[in-house]
Amino acid sequence: MSTTTKAPRVIVVGAGIRGSMFARAVQQNPVAQLVAVCEPAPAVRERVAGSLRVPGYADVQDALASHPEATAAIIATPDFAHREAATACAAAGLDLLLEKPLATTSADAAAICDATERAGTRTYVGFENRWNDKFVEVHRQLASGRHGAMVAQIVNLNDTVFVPTEMLSWAAQSSPAWFLMPHSLDLAMWFSGARPVDVFARGVRRVLPGLGVDTWDAVTASFSMSDGSVLVLNSQWVLPTSAPSVFDFRYEAHTDAASYHIDIADTGVTRYGAERVDWLQFGVTESRGRLAGIPIAMVDDFLAAVSGADVDLPDARHGQVVTDAIEAVHQSLTSSTPVAVPTGRTSVSH
Amino acid sequence: MSTTTKAPRVIVVGAGIRGSMFARAVQQNPVAQLVAVCEPAPAVRERVAGSLRVPGYADVQDALASHPEATAAIIATPDFAHREAATACAAAGLDLLLEKPLATTSADAAAICDATERAGTRTYVGFENRWNDKFVEVHRQLASGRHGAMVAQIVNLNDTVFVPTEMLSWAAQSSPAWFLMPHSLDLAMWFSGARPVDVFARGVRRVLPGLGVDTWDAVTASFSMSDGSVLVLNSQWVLPTSAPSVFDFRYEAHTDAASYHIDIADTGVTRYGAERVDWLQFGVTESRGRLAGIPIAMVDDFLAAVSGADVDLPDARHGQVVTDAIEAVHQSLTSSTPVAVPTGRTSVSH
Amino acid sequence: MSTTTKAPRVIVVGAGIRGSMFARAVQQNPVAQLVAVCEPAPAVRERVAGSLRVPGYADVQDALASHPEATAAIIATPDFAHREAATACAAAGLDLLLEKPLATTSADAAAICDATERAGTRTYVGFENRWNDKFVEVHRQLASGRHGAMVAQIVNLNDTVFVPTEMLSWAAQSSPAWFLMPHSLDLAMWFSGARPVDVFARGVRRVLPGLGVDTWDAVTASFSMSDGSVLVLNSQWVLPTSAPSVFDFRYEAHTDAASYHIDIADTGVTRYGAERVDWLQFGVTESRGRLAGIPIAMVDDFLAAVSGADVDLPDARHGQVVTDAIEAVHQSLTSSTPVAVPTGRTSVSH
Amino acid sequence: MSTTTKAPRVIVVGAGIRGSMFARAVQQNPVAQLVAVCEPAPAVRERVAGSLRVPGYADVQDALASHPEATAAIIATPDFAHREAATACAAAGLDLLLEKPLATTSADAAAICDATERAGTRTYVGFENRWNDKFVEVHRQLASGRHGAMVAQIVNLNDTVFVPTEMLSWAAQSSPAWFLMPHSLDLAMWFSGARPVDVFARGVRRVLPGLGVDTWDAVTASFSMSDGSVLVLNSQWVLPTSAPSVFDFRYEAHTDAASYHIDIADTGVTRYGAERVDWLQFGVTESRGRLAGIPIAMVDDFLAAVSGADVDLPDARHGQVVTDAIEAVHQSLTSSTPVAVPTGRTSVSH
Repeated sequence: MSTTTKAPRVIVVGAGIRGSMFARAVQQNPVAQLVAVCEPAPAVRERVAGSLRVPGYADVQDALASHPEATAAIIATPDFAHREAATACAAAGLDLLLEKPLATTSADAAAICDATERAGTRTYVGFENRWNDKFVEVHRQLASGRHGAMVAQIVNLNDTVFVPTEMLSWAAQSSPAWFLMPHSLDLAMWFSGARPVDVFARGVRRVLPGLGVDTWDAVTASFSMSDGSVLVLNSQWVLPTSAPSVFDFRYEAHTDAASYHIDIADTGVTRYGAERVDWLQFGVTESRGRLAGIPIAMVDDFLAAVSGADVDLPDARHGQVVTDAIEAVHQSLTSSTPVAVPTGRTSVSH
Repeated sequence: MSTTTKAPRVIVVGAGIRGSMFARAVQQNPVAQLVAVCEPAPAVRERVAGSLRVPGYADVQDALASHPEATAAIIATPDFAHREAATACAAAGLDLLLEKPLATTSADAAAICDATERAGTRTYVGFENRWNDKFVEVHRQLASGRHGAMVAQIVNLNDTVFVPTEMLSWAAQSSPAWFLMPHSLDLAMWFSGARPVDVFARGVRRVLPGLGVDTWDAVTASFSMSDGSVLVLNSQWVLPTSAPSVFDFRYEAHTDAASYHIDIADTGVTRYGAERVDWLQFGVTESRGRLAGIPIAMVDDFLAAVSGADVDLPDARHGQVVTDAIEAVHQSLTSSTPVAVPTGRTSVSH
Repeated sequence: MSTTTKAPRVIVVGAGIRGSMFARAVQQNPVAQLVAVCEPAPAVRERVAGSLRVPGYADVQDALASHPEATAAIIATPDFAHREAATACAAAGLDLLLEKPLATTSADAAAICDATERAGTRTYVGFENRWNDKFVEVHRQLASGRHGAMVAQIVNLNDTVFVPTEMLSWAAQSSPAWFLMPHSLDLAMWFSGARPVDVFARGVRRVLPGLGVDTWDAVTASFSMSDGSVLVLNSQWVLPTSAPSVFDFRYEAHTDAASYHIDIADTGVTRYGAERVDWLQFGVTESRGRLAGIPIAMVDDFLAAVSGADVDLPDARHGQVVTDAIEAVHQSLTSSTPVAVPTGRTSVSH
Repeated sequence: MSTTTKAPRVIVVGAGIRGSMFARAVQQNPVAQLVAVCEPAPAVRERVAGSLRVPGYADVQDALASHPEATAAIIATPDFAHREAATACAAAGLDLLLEKPLATTSADAAAICDATERAGTRTYVGFENRWNDKFVEVHRQLASGRHGAMVAQIVNLNDTVFVPTEMLSWAAQSSPAWFLMPHSLDLAMWFSGARPVDVFARGVRRVLPGLGVDTWDAVTASFSMSDGSVLVLNSQWVLPTSAPSVFDFRYEAHTDAASYHIDIADTGVTRYGAERVDWLQFGVTESRGRLAGIPIAMVDDFLAAVSGADVDLPDARHGQVVTDAIEAVHQSLTSSTPVAVPTGRTSVSH
């Protein structure tokens, strides 16, 4: 059983841009306490630990050993490095929040699920679009059932070529499917209350390899869902950098009686500047020393959940389904046949 | 060999809304002559033939027998009734323009192709989006090669539920794939200069059957193309009637270096009326007794082509590929496996 | 001097939709304390006071007499009833937050300013767009000076005819200029750091009088600003109710080197429903008993300001300029000549 | 009286981009005949006359003397040089089409009107937006009266700074008001069937003078119309060149029961290219040697009108009102007071 306390004491693992932001979010939360950060890079570790005035550790095991009072951890390591940190923290009895995706292999995902279930701790995956007002409201309306059942969802989530060629050092170990589709698929499951049954995927792999990044340029995946609806996910990594936003996120959900069109990238604020057109983005803001924004609200909800509040958060088994489904996408990409998504022991949160 | 003349003498087969418009387009063309219309419905036949002051026939064979001077025909019968009219006219040595799709079975499409090839006549299919300025300009730019090769095309072409439930009496014999995807697929072939190799399709068939129309609500089709690009076609027939246009046509083409987004339904002219929002459409207009618009320009180009001009028009073999591909979509819908698109004797026009 | 304390003790005057929301915002604020609500309507007063578990008073003087510990008040009475409540609270030494506009006559605005200056208390006006992320970000960029000086601002802020004919009982005592332009003008002053110098206005007064509401249908106002830029404000109250949002708010700011286009009503989330098209709005939301949203953030900032924090809030003198300028708009509407905006003792906040 | 003939014989005055296009439009018209072109620049004259195989003249008087058979002329000289060419052609009894605006001074406009009335010839002004499908359809709907009377029209017509600084050599002799507002005002008169009564205008004159072009950066003009509606025209010449189109044309017309929003620049076809975002434009196209597009349709209608057809074209008196009104805009810009628009002998075409 997880130790439910009114005052979570939190270790943040990974002190990059996201991790250090999460650590600040913990510190500003009225009930939680930040006890330590873990980060292998010495300079980063010293800077972040110093500015937050908490101890910094290179290794998660050292942090756990030094802080038996810790009750929760936030895992913000690179995607492929979730397993080691998560299983160590779970073994120490900590409740967890992991950045999406839960893992980048089904084996890692299953190992994390097993470890957290053995430990009896709470484990959540940070699908942060669930804290975006736009998706929250559409989900609320869809969940009301007033518009009938889902017919089809069509989701375009793309990045400009900047992301795989300049922003990510490890793009060749990832793909537009691994990097982008967990977002779309999580939302599609949340909106429909259904799980993916099988998937057929196609892709193109020509432009990025030519730029020295050996991965897919574009992937399209066609899912059948357990409620009989269809789901189309399109994700590309080669959009031109002239695009007004580094990402392009357009979501359509069609039910018996309504169609929802959601545009996330086009915020309605366009700047025609001296050299380019931009859709301004409003991520995490700071006012009087306090951060605000979607990931901060997510951390607050995680801290509330581990403090015993009744909060609907996507759990590890849900994260496993997403990982399994994206792995099935890649299997279909190479086999050119439809691939079943394993059913696992899934609890889909709606 | 087709009889090339400077003055095409034309029979129009089918005198419904489209056929009578085509007949007027022939009459106003400076070089062509309308010789007869064929229409089985007596009242329609008399009205149209009377207003155009040409003979009207119930049967195409009678029209052909009475008008040995005819050199061309425009076939505007219902989609499934193209074969008989087309083969009869071809056998009489007439050049043909058929409404899209060429046919609604591969067998019919092949029969028409064979008949016209035996007769040595010119046969074209009226994929009229090729006369839409927006597509013309994008095609011109893509064909220039300046933006690199095609990566992916994603095409949404939908109708509101009005179309299958109120507009078409024969919707149950058709589908969103048969009715809408020929448009999208033709453009995708034109833009890429490539042909479809195989297709995987999924669909939902729940809402329309519940409304008494036993066909698909929504179809999504994932094509691999002969140039290595991917093509996703989404077509639905259950959009809500509140939509600002009875159709929804959004086309994306992504190349190495550019992305094109084309919206056909949203014309940029929005009327917020007393009860609803509409995107105004500008179809065929009439000024001083002359029609103008996309289908009129298409008829003019057909008449120019059969008069010997060098006009790039989609031919019967191209139409056959489209029909074969849509038939493969339906096979995949029932088999849940990818289906190869027959290669045929195709001449893809670019 | 205002009594600066770490724990503001707050009376909320007016317990309608806005007032009761403000009262909840005070209660959930970690440092403030809600001491009473004032509301003349007995049923509303009892319901709101009861649910908030604070005393309710019909009269503001009674509340002030019974609560000498009060240090601040939020005034949420109807627009035209600000003066009495504000001057009474100021005389009692309370810091104030008033709903925009400060007042609906220059005389009332001046009286409020004088009263609060005599009392030495802090008084702010709730121009809540300043807490809208979109405007915050554009203001930040404009204030950075990187895009040059302001050339022109063009602001369309309209309501559908629903607002004056069904939503507001007192529309005939107001106008699209009084109801809408304070928002636009406040933003224009905030964005440019300049004040209005003079204004020329025109309007139409035909449709609403015909519907029994004797006020202006539409007003357009052309301002010269103290920095040499021009400002055009257009506000109508007769938009058709088919519009996807009850309001229409489109803001353009043009500087030497950049143009900003901001659309507030079109959130990027469109629902095509069974009968109409809507742009979904995301106002104040509730999660686990806590309200969140723009007006809540505004109340938090007000409470921080009166607790001594350095927060940039629009003050009473700024509110007076806005009221004076809208009064000048109405003078120009009747005189058909340009009208100077009084300079007053203004401190424009940028 | 104008000599009405079935075969207009046309002189084109000015052989620049527009003039040579008009000459080709005359040549391809089935009933008209191009008899000569006039162009003072020898190289241009020789090239254009040569390619069109018609005589070229430096001087319009020489052309008129050499071609007594001419019955019509199209005047495509620079805006400020209309008067001499138009009065000479009118004196010779020719029907005229002039590029908009009719003239750039009220005196020139009046002189042209007087000359053509004395000669009894037909004179039209080429406000070519009247041949744009979007405006045609909105005009048709407004003229039907089904949506009630006009309340307000708000028109933004802007250019990027490219136009006054790089495209036009004579920008300092013009202004955004002279160059752009004739378009907007003509449409506003056409849509409402009303004429401008008086105008108040403001502007900014800072950026362009700093770039060496001594004219207005931005002008806003507020008109009262003879039907009681209001009209706001905003025109700027300093938009950033990152804008997806060199012009920005957004038109709103609000009646009792409907609002029309028309966007001309955003065609719905967006190219995200290697370096910039563009809205593709579809101007004059050429197919099999024939030009098509808005200005070609306008020339065809002019030729039909002078051949006796009943065509609704904007005439010289209408052009004079537009010129008078734009002159009033400039008077108001310097006087800072409202300025009456002269009533003249106007026949507003609706």
